[in-house]
Formats: sequence, C-alpha cells, structure tokens
Amino acid sequence: MFQLDPNASEPLVAQIVNGLTRCIRSRQWRPGSRAQSIREFARVQGISTSTVVEAYDRLVAAGLLTARRGAGFFVAEAGRADSRPPAQSRMDASAISTDWLLRDIYEQREGDIYAGCGWLPESWHDLEAVSKAMRHLALHPQGSIRYGHPKGFEPLRQQLTRQLADLEVEAPPAQILLTLGASQALDLIVRRLTQPGDTVFVDDPGYSNLLSALRLRGLNLVGVPMTPTGPDAAVLEALLEQHRPQLYLTNTQLHNPTGASYSAAAAFKVLRLAERHDFLVVEDNVSADLVPGRAFTLAGADQLKRVIYVGSFSKSIAPGLRVGFVAAEPGLLDELVYHKLVSGMSTPVINERLVHSISLEGHVRKHLEHLRNRLAKAQERTCRRLENAQFKLFFEPGAGMFVWARPADPSVDTQALAQAALARDILLAPGHLFRPDQAPSPWLRFNVAHCDNDRLFTFIEAASTARP
Amino acid sequence: MFQLDPNASEPLVAQIVNGLTRCIRSRQWRPGSRAQSIREFARVQGISTSTVVEAYDRLVAAGLLTARRGAGFFVAEAGRADSRPPAQSRMDASAISTDWLLRDIYEQREGDIYAGCGWLPESWHDLEAVSKAMRHLALHPQGSIRYGHPKGFEPLRQQLTRQLADLEVEAPPAQILLTLGASQALDLIVRRLTQPGDTVFVDDPGYSNLLSALRLRGLNLVGVPMTPTGPDAAVLEALLEQHRPQLYLTNTQLHNPTGASYSAAAAFKVLRLAERHDFLVVEDNVSADLVPGRAFTLAGADQLKRVIYVGSFSKSIAPGLRVGFVAAEPGLLDELVYHKLVSGMSTPVINERLVHSISLEGHVRKHLEHLRNRLAKAQERTCRRLENAQFKLFFEPGAGMFVWARPADPSVDTQALAQAALARDILLAPGHLFRPDQAPSPWLRFNVAHCDNDRLFTFIEAASTARP
Repeated sequence: MFQLDPNASEPLVAQIVNGLTRCIRSRQWRPGSRAQSIREFARVQGISTSTVVEAYDRLVAAGLLTARRGAGFFVAEAGRADSRPPAQSRMDASAISTDWLLRDIYEQREGDIYAGCGWLPESWHDLEAVSKAMRHLALHPQGSIRYGHPKGFEPLRQQLTRQLADLEVEAPPAQILLTLGASQALDLIVRRLTQPGDTVFVDDPGYSNLLSALRLRGLNLVGVPMTPTGPDAAVLEALLEQHRPQLYLTNTQLHNPTGASYSAAAAFKVLRLAERHDFLVVEDNVSADLVPGRAFTLAGADQLKRVIYVGSFSKSIAPGLRVGFVAAEPGLLDELVYHKLVSGMSTPVINERLVHSISLEGHVRKHLEHLRNRLAKAQERTCRRLENAQFKLFFEPGAGMFVWARPADPSVDTQALAQAALARDILLAPGHLFRPDQAPSPWLRFNVAHCDNDRLFTFIEAASTARP
Repeated sequence: MFQLDPNASEPLVAQIVNGLTRCIRSRQWRPGSRAQSIREFARVQGISTSTVVEAYDRLVAAGLLTARRGAGFFVAEAGRADSRPPAQSRMDASAISTDWLLRDIYEQREGDIYAGCGWLPESWHDLEAVSKAMRHLALHPQGSIRYGHPKGFEPLRQQLTRQLADLEVEAPPAQILLTLGASQALDLIVRRLTQPGDTVFVDDPGYSNLLSALRLRGLNLVGVPMTPTGPDAAVLEALLEQHRPQLYLTNTQLHNPTGASYSAAAAFKVLRLAERHDFLVVEDNVSADLVPGRAFTLAGADQLKRVIYVGSFSKSIAPGLRVGFVAAEPGLLDELVYHKLVSGMSTPVINERLVHSISLEGHVRKHLEHLRNRLAKAQERTCRRLENAQFKLFFEPGAGMFVWARPADPSVDTQALAQAALARDILLAPGHLFRPDQAPSPWLRFNVAHCDNDRLFTFIEAASTARP
C-alpha cells in the first residue's frame, strides 16, 4: 500500500488515483479482485469518505475499477484496463496518392519536417489569445453547450459583416452561414448545386482536398490553368466552348498551391465569362487574412449575385477551431442552411464564441501584421534556398504560405522524390496531388513556414542534382 | 468627453472602449470624422499611449473606428458601425413542415415552451463540469488549435473503447471515428453506403432529422413500424419479401420519438433477418447514457460485423459540444474517415478534449445518475398530466426524454394543433414530422424535460377536448 501525504501540493484525490493506478498496473491489486471499500480505505488513511468516493469514481471512469451495484468496487479485468491502442502504422511510403495529404500528414510527429503541408506551425498562431478567450468563456459558459443558431453564432456573423465590408462585399449577418471550416462550406455548396456526372471547373493546379471531394461525388472535373495573376482567361474561354460547367470553384488570393492572386483584370474576365456562359463562381478566399494590403475579390465586384464567397479563420486564428463561413444570396444561403442542419445539425457554439472573442480583441490585428511579416521573410528565405538548390520557381508570391517550385531537371520524378523524402521523415507535396486528373507533375508545393530547415535543403539539393 | 477613473474596478481599456462607444453611438463623435490621435488622447487623460492603442484596436475590431494608414483613426460611417441584423422572422405558423424542427426550433427564445423539442434544457446539463474543463484546457492549450487526428482525439477514443466494452462491444480505438455529433456519423455512413434511388429501411415513426437527410439524398424510404419493444419483426419480414434494402437505420434504446427500447428478442430477430437478407444495420444509440441499468445492443450481439454503431455525448454531456462517434469494422471505418476528411477535414480538438476531460472526471457518473432519476420523475409526471388531458400514451417508457401520445379523439388534426400552439409560443412536434412519407399522424412527441408547465397543459386540455 502507498502513503498519502496531506501536506503535498498534489491534491489527495490525485494522490489516491495515481497510487492505486500503480497498484493496479503492477498487479499488486489483482484483476477481478475486490477493491478495499470506500469506508475502509478512508478509515485506514484517516481521510474523508468523499475524497475516496471521488478518487474511485475517477478510477471507474478510467476503466481501472468497475462498480457492481451493491457489491462494491472491483479491479477491472486486465484486458480492458490495459487496452492500449495498436501502434499507429504510418502509411507505406509507396502510397503517396492523392489521399496521402489527408490520411497521413495529420498524424503529426515531433522531428518530422512538414515542408509540403497546408497549415502553419501551431506556434505561429496566437495560442495565448486562444487561452485567454477560453478562460473568459469558462466564466460565462451559459448558452455555449446547447445547440447553436442554425446559421451560427450571431455576433460572429455580425463581425463578419464588418470584415466583408472591408472587402467591399455587402453581406448582412442573415446572408452568412458559419461552417465547420471552409471545407464544410465547400461541401455544402457542392451538395446543393451539383449532381454526380455534372461538369465543374476547377483551378489546375488546385486545392487537393477539394479535388478529392469533387471526384468522390462523381463530378467531371475540368482544370483551368493558373497563372501568377489568376486563371488563364484565354484557355477558360476556349474550355467554355466545349463544356457547360455548373460551377467554377477557384481560390482567388494566395492560391493553394501556387501562391497566385487574381489581378483585377483576371477577376473582371472571369465574372464576364460567368455571366455570358451562365455559371456560378465559388470564390474560395481562405487566405484573405494573409494578404498584405487590400485585395480585390470577385464577391466584391459581383456583390454575391453569381459569386458564392467562402472564408475561414484557420489562417488568422487557428485551423483546429474549425470555423469557416460562406456568404451567398439569401435564397441559396437558406438552402445551404438546410443542408448543414440535416448533415450535421448546428456547428458548435464554443468554437464560434472563441473565434468571436479573439477577433474582438484588438490584438488580432497586430498578430496578423506580425504573421504577414513573418511569412514574407520566410517566403524570401525559402525562394532563395530553393534557387540555390537549382529549383525553378513558378513565381515569387512574396506573401502567404505557398511556393510552387520544380527541380531544374524536368525529368525528375516528383512522386519518387516525395517517397524518398518520406523515408527520411520529410513530407513533400508532389504536384500530381494538385491536378484535377492526378496527372504527373514536375512541380512541388512548399510551405515556407515549415522550410527553415537545413536537413530539408540538404536532401533537396542532393535529390535535385542526382540522376534517377 | 467622459472622465476616466483610474481607481474604478473596470480596467482603463474597457472604460475607454465603453466611453467612446457611447460617444460614437450618440453621434457626439460624428461618422467619418477624425478621432483624437492616440498620443493626444493619452496626453489629455494622463494615461499611457499603450492603453489607448489597445482601446482603439478594440474599437477598430468592433467596427466603430477605422484605421487609415498614415492618417490616423476615423469614426466609422454610420451604416457600417450600426449594422444590426434584421429582426429574425419566426417561420410562418402555417409552415410546420418536416423542416420545422430544424429551421425554427433552434432559435430558442426565453419564455417559449419547447414541449416538442429533441434536447434537454441547458440547465439540466452539468455546466460547471464544462466550465471546469475549459479552465483546465486554457492552462494547457498546446495541441488544441491545430488540425486533429483524422479519427479524432485519441484519448477520447480510448475512453470510448472502455465505454463500449461495458456494452459488450469490442471496438479498439482504431475502429472508432469521432464525428460532429451523431448527425455527421449518420451522414458519413449514408454517403458511403448508399446511392440515390437505393432503398433503405427506417423506423416508422423515426428520427425526423435523419429522415430529412435520407429524403434529401434521394433514397427510397421504407418504414418498419415500431412497437414498445422494438420493430415489428413480422412486418419487417414481410417487407423484406418485397424490398432489398442497403441499410436498416434504427434507434435501439429510448427510441426517438416513441421512447421504445429493443427487447433482446427483437434484437435477435433483426440480426437474423439482416444475415438472411444480407443488409447492414446502423444502430443509432444516442440515448445509451440515459438508459437505466444495462442495455442490450445490436452491436454487442453482432460484434460490428453487420452492425455499425453510432453514439453521442449530446445527452450525457451537452449537445452543443457536437461530439459523436461511429464504431465499425476496420475496412468500413477507414472509408468513413476518408469521407469525413474530404467533407470537413478533422473535427475540432478542443471539443473532443473537453468531452474527454469531463468523462474522466468521476463526477460524470453521478451527474448521469441524477439525470436519469430526474427524467424518470418527469416521465411519470408528464404521463399523468397527458392522461388527465385525455391523451392516450403509446406506452410509458419510464426513462429518457420522449413520450409518444395522441389526443383521445383520433380525428384531431395534430398539424393544426401544433400551428395553434405555435401562435401561443408553445412548440409541439406533430407526428407527421416523424413519418418516412410525412403522412398525417394522430400522434405527437413530447419531451418530458420541457413539460412541467401549467400553460402547456391548459392549452393541451382545451385543444384535446375542443371539436375542430
């Protein structure tokens, strides 16, 4: 038996829980045997029964003790209490398929280099702001644990109305729907506006997760080539002679994966073609907060007539909170609300209140300024190191997370390169992941926030000069 | 101008924000005018510029001031700063369609009676436990704001493995997928396992939100009549002579809307028919935690071969956290993971950590015991009052939230009754909402946790005896 210390900083309940956990794990208390009764335990240790009750309750919750009505507590059978998860097996390195970014890269490990991933390091976000907002919410939790409003937490939608006004998009709170990140927004739009077999236009290269979702729905994907200033309008026009898309889903600012941003001219041409050929445009602008200065948006030009606008707090606050949104004309928005409710009910209020509370803090403006500067420096550094490693750049975005680059030798197999990297715990993102048809590509996506790493560039330099 | 009080308990920043908000709203500071500079404001008030910077930042975030680079701060134009949402219009009382429960009832208002709703009052949940878990998380936020593991927070899945073992379901953490409530779990299953035009069997009456989702997917719904001890096996067998369902989606314990629970015999018959006719069974057991004593589950009998098990923390902890789960055989589970990721990425870590932290607390066991007792009493009370109001009960569940009852006069139009109730701010749930084909029904669903109300029963008594 172990000795409790009433003067220790560790509370008595925790001392009991930890002590008994050791007794059970070391089989001093044998599986299936009856545990000391609460009353007896309290008497022997000279403590109150309520302390023991709480400790036993926790041990039951942890699966180490079981309570049998009227018979007391028993040490759980070994199998159950010791059930540890099987070791997570990393996907075989040969399986760098389109699904790879999804299935593997989320299982983040210390020491791995996430040069190809699509998010910022957690330490680049303002963790203290999140923590502060949580403490505040803990003081006023009322209203947070019931179902939220179908469209999402209203004060946050009011806040978004103001943010969108800065982008010249007029969207009252009733025309904004909060979603589980931008991904759910895109999913709801695609559910509502397409049927399997329909044709949709997408960026080529484009956002890999969206392309997977569209393929999964059985849509016919037609890629519109991206240039550093937006889609190639001449090609878009030619494609529209052959196809009648329902939608064109396009990422307008700091485009994933190339870093490209629409020029005003590109935006104007796309909108004119959308009118002439009668299709809707889904403007994915999830990196809006990373754009330095004022950006031109399709939704601002069109005022949500033909454009559906999708945004997110994943870049400005944190991806793990999973708060995104869609703004659309009222009729369509109500239909998206319905699709949201039947597929997952309301989104969690807590997350939306945290985001609201953080965005009300003046500090968020300073944090974003700092983040944009940090990314600009990382862009500069990464581009120089890629050039030193004999890589060609698609262009230099100068902002945002992404750089699109390829080995000077266009015959290098980037899929094989990524496989070789994975064996060294370096996660690269080969270009075929971002192609609508998953065709081979000499390009790779780099995330500059994860590229300040000598081991990465040692590998890249060796690889880009070696002959296969 | 207003006077700051350095000795007040309200921090200086808040005093400035509140004071200037009043100045701006009262138009003492006129829209479009230049605001006092930070330096000047600080000098006049005799406070540090950093205090003023923080206050101005918050006013910018709130849309009351705008910052123009190099030119200082300006009072926002009236339209933007005053943009209030349009008053929420309650749906017209004539529109009690299947969508009504979804679209309207979430917009909860003080004073309304939610006799027909599907959730517990927020005050019946352990708000203090949520608050405590939030405070704890605020101290250790690391790892909470990045994307979570594709299958969800691993310690919570380990915890679920132990909970499921208590239901005799053997499901290692790798076979459990956390979802945005049970709704997302059901949605992913339906996406993966059905195509538009397929036939699926459902409970009749059944869970209205699920029925809406299935209709939206273009599925052919065949209802299996529920009895107080589970589905009518003879009818199920007869229906299987005519139809080949992909799935049978059924709510096995404290069934929504009738309160029925499967007997062991009903479970055995359903499983035998599933084997013989080769269909999968989706066991929706979201009320498992409200079942007093040990319950029989399909998944426990079948060990996840033909059964897919769906659960939730909405009843035991809180619906607003939106944490549910699905347990399935490994191959299918991996496919559900993929559908989850492409349609919405990972689920938010914060919510899953809160649920985990609350379920580790021994107190959750006591809370559930208290909740079950409270519901049992509310069941008894509601059943007696319904009988006094000349209502017939389908049967007395004695546990859980739901009672299924109808006016003694079967010719009463329950849809009209619900419309009349809505005009008095009483939300009833007429039976057609729970029919696969939305056919008229003499029944209504009552949620006993919302029924301890004289105004409700005054209305019901008058309505059930009045002739239309």
